[in-house]
Amino acid sequence: MIRLGMVGGGQGAFIGAVHRIAARIDGRFQLVAGALSANPERALASAKQLHISPERSYSDFKQMAIEEAKREDGIQAVTIVTPNHMHYPAAKAFLEQGIHVICDKPMTSSLADALELAQIAKRSEVMFVLTHNYSAYPMVRQARAMVENGDLGNIRVIQAEYAQDWLTEASELGDNKQAQWRTDPKRSGPAGCLGDIGTHAYHLARFISGLKLEKVSADLTSFVEGRQLDDNVHSMLRFEKGAKGMLWSSQVAPGNENGLKVRIYGDKGGLSWEQESPNRLVFDKFGSAQQILTRGGHGYTGSEHLVRIPAGHPEGYLEGFANLYNEIADGIEACATGKLASDVLNDSLLPTVSDGVDGLEFIQAILDSSEADGRWTSLGGA
Amino acid sequence: MIRLGMVGGGQGAFIGAVHRIAARIDGRFQLVAGALSANPERALASAKQLHISPERSYSDFKQMAIEEAKREDGIQAVTIVTPNHMHYPAAKAFLEQGIHVICDKPMTSSLADALELAQIAKRSEVMFVLTHNYSAYPMVRQARAMVENGDLGNIRVIQAEYAQDWLTEASELGDNKQAQWRTDPKRSGPAGCLGDIGTHAYHLARFISGLKLEKVSADLTSFVEGRQLDDNVHSMLRFEKGAKGMLWSSQVAPGNENGLKVRIYGDKGGLSWEQESPNRLVFDKFGSAQQILTRGGHGYTGSEHLVRIPAGHPEGYLEGFANLYNEIADGIEACATGKLASDVLNDSLLPTVSDGVDGLEFIQAILDSSEADGRWTSLGGA
Amino acid sequence: MIRLGMVGGGQGAFIGAVHRIAARIDGRFQLVAGALSANPERALASAKQLHISPERSYSDFKQMAIEEAKREDGIQAVTIVTPNHMHYPAAKAFLEQGIHVICDKPMTSSLADALELAQIAKRSEVMFVLTHNYSAYPMVRQARAMVENGDLGNIRVIQAEYAQDWLTEASELGDNKQAQWRTDPKRSGPAGCLGDIGTHAYHLARFISGLKLEKVSADLTSFVEGRQLDDNVHSMLRFEKGAKGMLWSSQVAPGNENGLKVRIYGDKGGLSWEQESPNRLVFDKFGSAQQILTRGGHGYTGSEHLVRIPAGHPEGYLEGFANLYNEIADGIEACATGKLASDVLNDSLLPTVSDGVDGLEFIQAILDSSEADGRWTSLGGA
Amino acid sequence: MIRLGMVGGGQGAFIGAVHRIAARIDGRFQLVAGALSANPERALASAKQLHISPERSYSDFKQMAIEEAKREDGIQAVTIVTPNHMHYPAAKAFLEQGIHVICDKPMTSSLADALELAQIAKRSEVMFVLTHNYSAYPMVRQARAMVENGDLGNIRVIQAEYAQDWLTEASELGDNKQAQWRTDPKRSGPAGCLGDIGTHAYHLARFISGLKLEKVSADLTSFVEGRQLDDNVHSMLRFEKGAKGMLWSSQVAPGNENGLKVRIYGDKGGLSWEQESPNRLVFDKFGSAQQILTRGGHGYTGSEHLVRIPAGHPEGYLEGFANLYNEIADGIEACATGKLASDVLNDSLLPTVSDGVDGLEFIQAILDSSEADGRWTSLGGA
Repeated sequence: MIRLGMVGGGQGAFIGAVHRIAARIDGRFQLVAGALSANPERALASAKQLHISPERSYSDFKQMAIEEAKREDGIQAVTIVTPNHMHYPAAKAFLEQGIHVICDKPMTSSLADALELAQIAKRSEVMFVLTHNYSAYPMVRQARAMVENGDLGNIRVIQAEYAQDWLTEASELGDNKQAQWRTDPKRSGPAGCLGDIGTHAYHLARFISGLKLEKVSADLTSFVEGRQLDDNVHSMLRFEKGAKGMLWSSQVAPGNENGLKVRIYGDKGGLSWEQESPNRLVFDKFGSAQQILTRGGHGYTGSEHLVRIPAGHPEGYLEGFANLYNEIADGIEACATGKLASDVLNDSLLPTVSDGVDGLEFIQAILDSSEADGRWTSLGGA
Repeated sequence: MIRLGMVGGGQGAFIGAVHRIAARIDGRFQLVAGALSANPERALASAKQLHISPERSYSDFKQMAIEEAKREDGIQAVTIVTPNHMHYPAAKAFLEQGIHVICDKPMTSSLADALELAQIAKRSEVMFVLTHNYSAYPMVRQARAMVENGDLGNIRVIQAEYAQDWLTEASELGDNKQAQWRTDPKRSGPAGCLGDIGTHAYHLARFISGLKLEKVSADLTSFVEGRQLDDNVHSMLRFEKGAKGMLWSSQVAPGNENGLKVRIYGDKGGLSWEQESPNRLVFDKFGSAQQILTRGGHGYTGSEHLVRIPAGHPEGYLEGFANLYNEIADGIEACATGKLASDVLNDSLLPTVSDGVDGLEFIQAILDSSEADGRWTSLGGA
Repeated sequence: MIRLGMVGGGQGAFIGAVHRIAARIDGRFQLVAGALSANPERALASAKQLHISPERSYSDFKQMAIEEAKREDGIQAVTIVTPNHMHYPAAKAFLEQGIHVICDKPMTSSLADALELAQIAKRSEVMFVLTHNYSAYPMVRQARAMVENGDLGNIRVIQAEYAQDWLTEASELGDNKQAQWRTDPKRSGPAGCLGDIGTHAYHLARFISGLKLEKVSADLTSFVEGRQLDDNVHSMLRFEKGAKGMLWSSQVAPGNENGLKVRIYGDKGGLSWEQESPNRLVFDKFGSAQQILTRGGHGYTGSEHLVRIPAGHPEGYLEGFANLYNEIADGIEACATGKLASDVLNDSLLPTVSDGVDGLEFIQAILDSSEADGRWTSLGGA
Repeated sequence: MIRLGMVGGGQGAFIGAVHRIAARIDGRFQLVAGALSANPERALASAKQLHISPERSYSDFKQMAIEEAKREDGIQAVTIVTPNHMHYPAAKAFLEQGIHVICDKPMTSSLADALELAQIAKRSEVMFVLTHNYSAYPMVRQARAMVENGDLGNIRVIQAEYAQDWLTEASELGDNKQAQWRTDPKRSGPAGCLGDIGTHAYHLARFISGLKLEKVSADLTSFVEGRQLDDNVHSMLRFEKGAKGMLWSSQVAPGNENGLKVRIYGDKGGLSWEQESPNRLVFDKFGSAQQILTRGGHGYTGSEHLVRIPAGHPEGYLEGFANLYNEIADGIEACATGKLASDVLNDSLLPTVSDGVDGLEFIQAILDSSEADGRWTSLGGA
């Protein structure tokens, strides 16, 4: 069992619990330490609930990194699930102690932090994994493999969207903590819906297509009165090799629960995948009848390690997330046998620090373009 | 029975046959004259097939307009289903003879023609109806009524798309006549996919939302090598009252047959309608379970005259089209009793010359914006 | 144009209007005579509305048959759309005058009538067509062809169902005329839901599979208090060649509008078709990914004459019905050139008098089995 | 953490791994002992893989029950995931040692065993839980609550089905171990598809409707040549209070992966749930538009403890299964505080020994009815 720690994710948090389930599903991690809250009492209460022994409940993640690094039975990896602005210092602390880092997205709340973190990660001898969990759904992996295999031919059009409705009203004014920090620039950075879910859609488009995004033209809006961050993102995309796309993300679209969808079209075929029906992948070879591919089903050509149960027995969001943890466990074990962390990551499909930088560049380009009334803006400030 | 003529729509044409079926479905029109082709022999052969008597088969629509206007039993209305560039002169000829005009979209191949035609139509004492057929699907009408009724609250976001795949390859180089004229600037005007289907998506967004589009930012592409007109349209939209949107239309998206879809979100609810499942309308009142409304079903609040057969017995594209003809027949009968054509049109939901101008303004603004690398461009050249 | 008459289908009727639209869609029939109601005034008023000249509006179908047979311009075919118990005498009258008969289903209200009518039809020199309209949907035809072609291998299991909800409450006690006659044994015969829609499901199962049904075991219920005829049919089926099946039909299943569905499984593959999405056919070749076949789409191998408009432009119930009329028109024209009616029918896929007898045998066997507490009962009383 | 043991589920088994994941997801169980295989070496190897210490790896479950009962840190509960015929002796062994039993379905391979086990379980002071996992999906629970609440009115019709395709060919002749024991009467008992999946569909129909099944009429078939057990079940059902139903289960229906579906109709409304889209429940209140209810979504009225992640983030089969384990953990903790096991079970919705007996009575009645050519046969031999 791999010894895991966690920063953030105390009582009342959402994504922390998700990471814990994901880490448990395949039985390869044991949560043994945590700085679950900046509030020591809350940290301790949360730790107790999670069977973490009191002496390994920290209220300061820096102290945690130092102490755990000293222990014989110290944590081998840490999961960071704080609000965005704390990702950078927390990741830095653990990387510098040679502890593998699993970090929620977006990687940081600013591009500057992201670039710096990338340097730190590259200098370190451990893995930094960014949990773009949607990329580990089996049918997303199959989609990527099919594109790579040429099943779609040359990619022309990429339509990505991620729509939700939970911020349709100003719920941040009530006691919804999720709404509060996600609409607060101090904790989320300058991007609202864009950073929270737009980056997922962007990552997925890029992950499946294998194409680098070159330029964006964007129109951000805050529809809810008084909201400080965007709650709707409209953007047009220009990828390398002449591919074009659109990306819509919204948290004010009533009826959309978690509507992440990616469609990719090339000169030989098209693919469509929707997160709410994750076990299906729709494939159209131009000139042939539509095919419905399913996880583990007839026609599934994806990795067997992503399939726990037979076709028709739905695996969902948590299993998709757990696929990342499973591959991280493989990676940690490989590192333990002396393999270089950078080689391990290169050989995997795990999202890492360069995806994180790329995500922040995307955010920055969208923010800049929208500010400039939609001017086409290059990623990476070029 | 209303006596109907037709210009265009000879053997091998697509949309002409559609109009004829639509006109027949409710048994209120009889096709008695035609200039079905510019080629006299082809015109005559087509006429014969359609039980039009030879003396009322014309090869010149101007002559047809004049001759029919003279006859006691002359046509009361004419349907124009030529390639786009002929819409203007043909419509002009019949309007000037006091014959009601039913015209396929886009109304003309240039904005200048559209504006001129609008003047002619307004001076005339007959009806000019533009066949934006999708607006006459019962659930589209119900969607419009629900928006008008405030069921969605203030509209914030409009996502429109119209994707097909039939021009994925350069089929205009083969003997596909539909592909030939639709990709030929001489016959289609300067817009390809944009004029052919983008205008339908635009009209529908506007028809349902009731909102005027103010500005567009666009990125047009011709993906197929050698193609002279756009085959993919990406655009961002700004409507009046702060609503925003996106419109994607494509004819190179494999797997999409006739994927016209409109989604509208307000601060109280959302609607989604897809042309390929036209008898359903998805409605989400924010905070409540999703509702599936069906034509003629429990919860249908639309017009009874749009429902020929009970819920669950699918009515399709042809019946949607026939709804327009049915309302046109009502209009012609009303005019025949002395009502003013302009009043008849105002009291109806039929698309007319101002929709046609609006469509051409949309086309022009998209073309201009794309030419200007996506600069936000006002409709109507303002 | 083929001259058509109609018996039944006056004002307020449902299926008569459907037949008229179906006959009009492809422009090959003209309705010129009718005995639209037994009530002369209502007959006349209905005729007027339908542009039938008064002297060809009859109140007695026998007289109509005789008169029309005498006329030079007499009808060539008649459509019978009365309640079930009148099908037999009406069909007899016209067959005996050498006029082609198009008859709604079930063919008669008793098996005895059906057998007699079969004799009369066989003796006549004209066509008798039973409007099992669902069999003329393009994807149903493709399904049949695929079975015939061996794409499913040997058929093992057939699951047929037809569920509606419109008789959930005792609407026959109100002023719903459709409910009144369909739940009245005097007008419908001894079968309620069974005859009204169960026979459609049965016909379709047989039509697609090509298999003869040998035995049934059934359980009929009238759930609504006071209802005289069954409103729910449960049955198990044994076909020739060892295939087995189930058939459920119900008019008391809330949420089901017109839920006709047939699924067929063989040792090499399976098919599924649903009437409410009629343009799709789901095909599973065992061991391969699921395929979605569409009318006119990539992978469509059906007849071109069943496709009026391109894939993605939905054709519906009325077009499916019109397909029958179109093939009837072909048949009438073939007969007019001297071909034998029986040969014409044999060369077609049109349902005819033997399908009608078969349907009544099915009804009788189900009634008998249910009466005998589910005893397996042979069709045809064997 | 609750100390858990397992009988069966060694390397290569399917359902054992599922139970282990389900037990892990919410972090309340720790697997500490096992008789994972009757083969000692295989048992040991499997134990090692699962971090079970060698001294707690047993090859004999009787010995395991005795040894574990003696230990201070002995298991509190055991999961039995052997082939069916071993359920009875294994359950007996642990119940008699006062260890809670979690047993896969069907409970036993014969009704006699089931009745005896029921006696043993009732005499014991511990819980016996049967893992009819589908009953713990949140939307299934909501369906049950809605029926109980009267939302459907009086139940009339229940349509249950469970179709798969994985036994379409004689895969038991190859090296498919799942296929081998599931088609082998010695290990599965006299029911094939019926016991394997038919019982799930039956349990679900009963669980949601709350109605007792009184009689069945059945037709079992083994379609694959040489197969000794049924691979297709057709049956008609008569429930108490006049409700009727049908149940189809098949493992030879190509294209069906894990097609468990239950539809229930009453005089006020209808419900439909499909296992492959488990987060949705379709509800039709008669006379109103259809509603789509979702786990955790607007309109969800189910238990919060069944919802780990927000609506739109799909939870699947494993989480449904884990819901049972979570409730079992609650139960074990309650028993540990002195509550009676029987009271704990009565207060829960967990399937237990009486469901097991009921399932075997169902199997027996179906077998008897089919043997008697479909004679209506009472459950419980009455």
